[in-house]
Amino acid sequence: MPGRRRGRRPASEDTRTVLIEAARAVFTEQGYAGATVRQIAARADMDPSMINHWFGGKDALFTEAVLQLPFRPVDIAANVLDGPVDELGERFVRTVLRVWDSAGGGQMTAVLRSFATSNEAVQAFREQMLDKVFLPLAERLQVEDAAFRATLCASQMAGLALARYALVLEPLASADPETVVTAVAPNLQRYLTGDLG
Amino acid sequence: MPGRRRGRRPASEDTRTVLIEAARAVFTEQGYAGATVRQIAARADMDPSMINHWFGGKDALFTEAVLQLPFRPVDIAANVLDGPVDELGERFVRTVLRVWDSAGGGQMTAVLRSFATSNEAVQAFREQMLDKVFLPLAERLQVEDAAFRATLCASQMAGLALARYALVLEPLASADPETVVTAVAPNLQRYLTGDLG
Repeated sequence: MPGRRRGRRPASEDTRTVLIEAARAVFTEQGYAGATVRQIAARADMDPSMINHWFGGKDALFTEAVLQLPFRPVDIAANVLDGPVDELGERFVRTVLRVWDSAGGGQMTAVLRSFATSNEAVQAFREQMLDKVFLPLAERLQVEDAAFRATLCASQMAGLALARYALVLEPLASADPETVVTAVAPNLQRYLTGDLG
Repeated sequence: MPGRRRGRRPASEDTRTVLIEAARAVFTEQGYAGATVRQIAARADMDPSMINHWFGGKDALFTEAVLQLPFRPVDIAANVLDGPVDELGERFVRTVLRVWDSAGGGQMTAVLRSFATSNEAVQAFREQMLDKVFLPLAERLQVEDAAFRATLCASQMAGLALARYALVLEPLASADPETVVTAVAPNLQRYLTGDLG
């Protein structure tokens, strides 16, 4: 179909992508506390209002750019839940690992640095990852102790990020993604739906 | 028995304790990279040679003072291994959690800050925790893929420290220690002796 730009993403996706890449660079350089909406907008050559329009502010942009979620936090639980409940852990670990691996260790180290230097980044993690991803995941399963299970899942996934990317613990750091999924997923599944005693 | 100072620890234990407390304060203030053997010795009002005598250097002192191991790293595997193999995960999580809880969140945040600011601290973690604790633990069990299993254990324990102390994810952060042991130990046990696929 001549004239149609096939494979071209819509302009709104371009804007998001450019803002995420600018944010990633600025957060990596400055840490969470040091980075400003104005700096990120300048790096992207856009008006600062675009960040509020597309992401709703610095916290949510941090989550998408640096925590490297494959979805908006509010959507991830629903996406991972689409499928058999007893393969939930597997889908979750595989999805998150694919995104993290493609992002590389530098991003994960930036997250760690942000946690160490800023209480705001820790608060952003709690609100964006725990409250919008792990907690809805556990709650929709209608299991007991959903909040406790959510934090146990967060402990394993945060530890996996720490060990694989920031501490570079071998052979976990270089292991084939599917090997990691097979090893870790049943543990995540137990935290979600298993007997915790 | 008059004249005998019952309950008094031997002088060598006093020296170790004073050095560990001084090191904890200096590492918390300066981070791993900024802290020097000389500063720690000055804080303890001792000669710097005592640090080499009692700990063998800054790395090992960092491990005992900040990573808060209940034993010397070289001994921990042997200590935890004393008992049924199928309760290994439980003994390990209970032992480590007791020490970490008594140390408080400040120490764990200091560890995190050290990782973020110093490649030396990351290297110290690899050499002191992975090579001397998790790896010997997995190797003595004569399981397959001991090195991979050791790094999986490290990921869960590092993530538990991160979630409970540094990120303060509730209700995990305030949960009764035995509740945490019951929840986490079977996952650690699976990493050590279970089927990883």
